[in-house]
Amino acid sequence: MSDTSENVDVRWHQHAVSRVEREKKHGHQGCVIWFTGLSGCGKSTLANLVDHTLHARGLQSFVLDGDNVRFGLNASPSLLKERHGEDFAKRFGLGFSSLDREENIRRIGAVAELFAQAGLITLTAFISPYRSDRDGIRARLSKGDFVEVFVKAPLEVCERRDPKGLYKKARAGELKNFTGIDDPYEEPENPELVVDSALHSAEELAEIVSDWLEKAGKIPKK
Amino acid sequence: MSDTSENVDVRWHQHAVSRVEREKKHGHQGCVIWFTGLSGCGKSTLANLVDHTLHARGLQSFVLDGDNVRFGLNASPSLLKERHGEDFAKRFGLGFSSLDREENIRRIGAVAELFAQAGLITLTAFISPYRSDRDGIRARLSKGDFVEVFVKAPLEVCERRDPKGLYKKARAGELKNFTGIDDPYEEPENPELVVDSALHSAEELAEIVSDWLEKAGKIPKK
Repeated sequence: MSDTSENVDVRWHQHAVSRVEREKKHGHQGCVIWFTGLSGCGKSTLANLVDHTLHARGLQSFVLDGDNVRFGLNASPSLLKERHGEDFAKRFGLGFSSLDREENIRRIGAVAELFAQAGLITLTAFISPYRSDRDGIRARLSKGDFVEVFVKAPLEVCERRDPKGLYKKARAGELKNFTGIDDPYEEPENPELVVDSALHSAEELAEIVSDWLEKAGKIPKK
Repeated sequence: MSDTSENVDVRWHQHAVSRVEREKKHGHQGCVIWFTGLSGCGKSTLANLVDHTLHARGLQSFVLDGDNVRFGLNASPSLLKERHGEDFAKRFGLGFSSLDREENIRRIGAVAELFAQAGLITLTAFISPYRSDRDGIRARLSKGDFVEVFVKAPLEVCERRDPKGLYKKARAGELKNFTGIDDPYEEPENPELVVDSALHSAEELAEIVSDWLEKAGKIPKK
């Protein structure tokens, strides 16, 4: 038994599949396409539409947005409380304070990085209003892996759309620290791409993004 | 301008690629293969070896282990301090307290869930010593999505291997709350699979796991 174990031990070595091997199989590189902009600017719709286009073209992609992180990875204190108790929920649950928002984006950046390592084109759709948070993720990733897409739209257009009724709540004082109302949105200074969602349909924007990805060599030509 | 925006607004609707569509493209379902066991039992080696096998068979898989979460998603306070400051690091950085370990596994579970939603066979390799933490992840996932693999090995075998020198440090009192030494490992009660790493080589174990996945219908037959 002792001998067997020792012989077995010798053979315990790492044999990880490299990112390059995964990308070779996929026929394209992994990367993070980071959509940023005001609530209601159309980030999530656009990310999902681009994802759909990439998927239809046989590429490997995935969207991270509020829909799939807010009940899990970045759950609120009230969501965590039942299963994990009050102390846990208070410490790790995310609200809307400045620190909490910073951690919200940091976790998403770290997860997007993992998806990129898995060789996926990872589309993230979060307001991510602070320049330092976005730049922090850019700094962590390898050169070229972070594609910042500023989805531009005037506040009044976003507020008129108000797809989730959040602006209404923020104006009524029911939501505090709401970006564009009582918390700043810091526009990207050197984004890879700026698209204007007040001037184009979602389909047009998705095509603009796909074309950019093709020209930048992030995805194969059609 | 106002009219244009309103016309544009009508076309803003979600068009997400479903998990089923992703899985159809991959030719297999996404799931989480959760390897659990003592430090040095061979979880990470085994997960990487299975990943390699799946990758070679053209399947979509990825490994989450200490190597790729400890410097990002679940960074320690000291790693977070430089970029995010002391208050942030203290609140969100993860150490080895009971709450911190719970959050460590919770975040990993949430990320594994996202990878499964992306249609990947997601292999996780963490000690994950507490039954309640593992069961919490099982409870969150859809039925059949959580495959718990207990990588069994006697403590003395793991301690003799001690690939990272951690047992030595724990015995010397330099590491506190070390699983198997001064913190308990709670064996799974009903794992999908138990493999004994003191009796088999890593290659043999990887074959056992692959065979199980094939029989369970998680991956196509060779």
